[in-house]
Amino acid sequence: MRFTAEALSDGVREQLFTLGDVPGVLWTPEDAAGTRPLILMGHGGGQHKKAPGIVSRARRFVAECQFAAAAVDVPGHGDRPKDEKYDRIVTENQARVEAGEELAPLIAGFQALVARQTVPEWRAVLDAVQELDHVGTGPVGYWGVSLGCGLGVPFVAAEPRVRAAVLGLGGALATAEVAARITVPVEFLVQWDDERVPRTQSLALFDALASAEKSLHANPGKHGEIPAFELDSTLRFFARHLDRRM
Amino acid sequence: MRFTAEALSDGVREQLFTLGDVPGVLWTPEDAAGTRPLILMGHGGGQHKKAPGIVSRARRFVAECQFAAAAVDVPGHGDRPKDEKYDRIVTENQARVEAGEELAPLIAGFQALVARQTVPEWRAVLDAVQELDHVGTGPVGYWGVSLGCGLGVPFVAAEPRVRAAVLGLGGALATAEVAARITVPVEFLVQWDDERVPRTQSLALFDALASAEKSLHANPGKHGEIPAFELDSTLRFFARHLDRRM
Repeated sequence: MRFTAEALSDGVREQLFTLGDVPGVLWTPEDAAGTRPLILMGHGGGQHKKAPGIVSRARRFVAECQFAAAAVDVPGHGDRPKDEKYDRIVTENQARVEAGEELAPLIAGFQALVARQTVPEWRAVLDAVQELDHVGTGPVGYWGVSLGCGLGVPFVAAEPRVRAAVLGLGGALATAEVAARITVPVEFLVQWDDERVPRTQSLALFDALASAEKSLHANPGKHGEIPAFELDSTLRFFARHLDRRM
Repeated sequence: MRFTAEALSDGVREQLFTLGDVPGVLWTPEDAAGTRPLILMGHGGGQHKKAPGIVSRARRFVAECQFAAAAVDVPGHGDRPKDEKYDRIVTENQARVEAGEELAPLIAGFQALVARQTVPEWRAVLDAVQELDHVGTGPVGYWGVSLGCGLGVPFVAAEPRVRAAVLGLGGALATAEVAARITVPVEFLVQWDDERVPRTQSLALFDALASAEKSLHANPGKHGEIPAFELDSTLRFFARHLDRRM
């Protein structure tokens, strides 16, 4: 793990790093010392580790909960090179949609393929970040919607360090079987008028989660229009499950 | 409005009253002076104004938010006499179910009939309670699930003083048209394994609400098993919409 840049603002330390060829970012409280909960965040399709929706959430996890937060670029996104294998599949899928195939199953299949790479990458990031003195091996939460849900479901299912997850804006097609292996508490976000994920598929993915505690939060609006008050709920959800002090 | 009993405990004043032939209860902070938000609460079928789920919520509205809270007995419930007209319909409905009719539409029709009586009763309670010095004419919230939703939807639709409502455990059959007249923020509770209200009908009622801000909160479990953390969410929801100080 190699740190490449560092910045401080409003009490939050932001450290850019690379782990092998994976570029990432770690946010911690400015004066952090000792073990604390860590939220790993998965960004959306076409976004990257420092997309506004990632940064704003990470800074609130740090500032309000004293947690650490980390995000990395998904293959083909952010500071990572284009990936010819994935690009070829995307191009093929576009042709198949133009030829009349449904988009949703193609996206789901693609996300399942990418997850074979991101699950081990993200587990390695957890290993490395938790070795840092100012993070340590505390409980882990996962936050990811849309692509971050498609890649997050296999990650949360595979990684026993994750104790709670916020997921959503994703459907059940490729992930329902994997979701049935998730047993940690989940807060699951649905946009009632999502133009990309059919409502029935969102509800089916929530239904498939094996978690004894899972809450579906559905709000009006399109795919990208999660209301601001849901972030307040996310903070309380992680505080309740990861930090007995709060 | 006639007060018949009063008790103080843990900083909460509980006053029993009758308004005409409607028995009710009002909870306020022990040292309350001046105008404050008021939550009117509708109890469930077979319950009454001091059912445990009503009292525990009312005490938290008062203790944590400094709100007032009030509940009254629905006709045929609690301290009110049996109502021959309603009893006859219930008996007829039982016979119709035994003869093979579906239960849900009969319940919905019955609740719509009772609401013709409870909507004006509850509006009169608001009038009377808001004349008290320690309540005043502040913003009003409504909380009611199950029967409290069936009667609450017509009440919230009819009463402009209601600025926010928590509803749920109810279906769309009789209330969808009325729900389409509700425009205030709503938090809508669904039990994912509700044995009384079909899931599709719950989702349809949420869908029918015309509110620009509405959140569906669905959790695993049966009709009576709303998880405790939803009350935390209810408190924050009302605080956010009724009290700018919080």
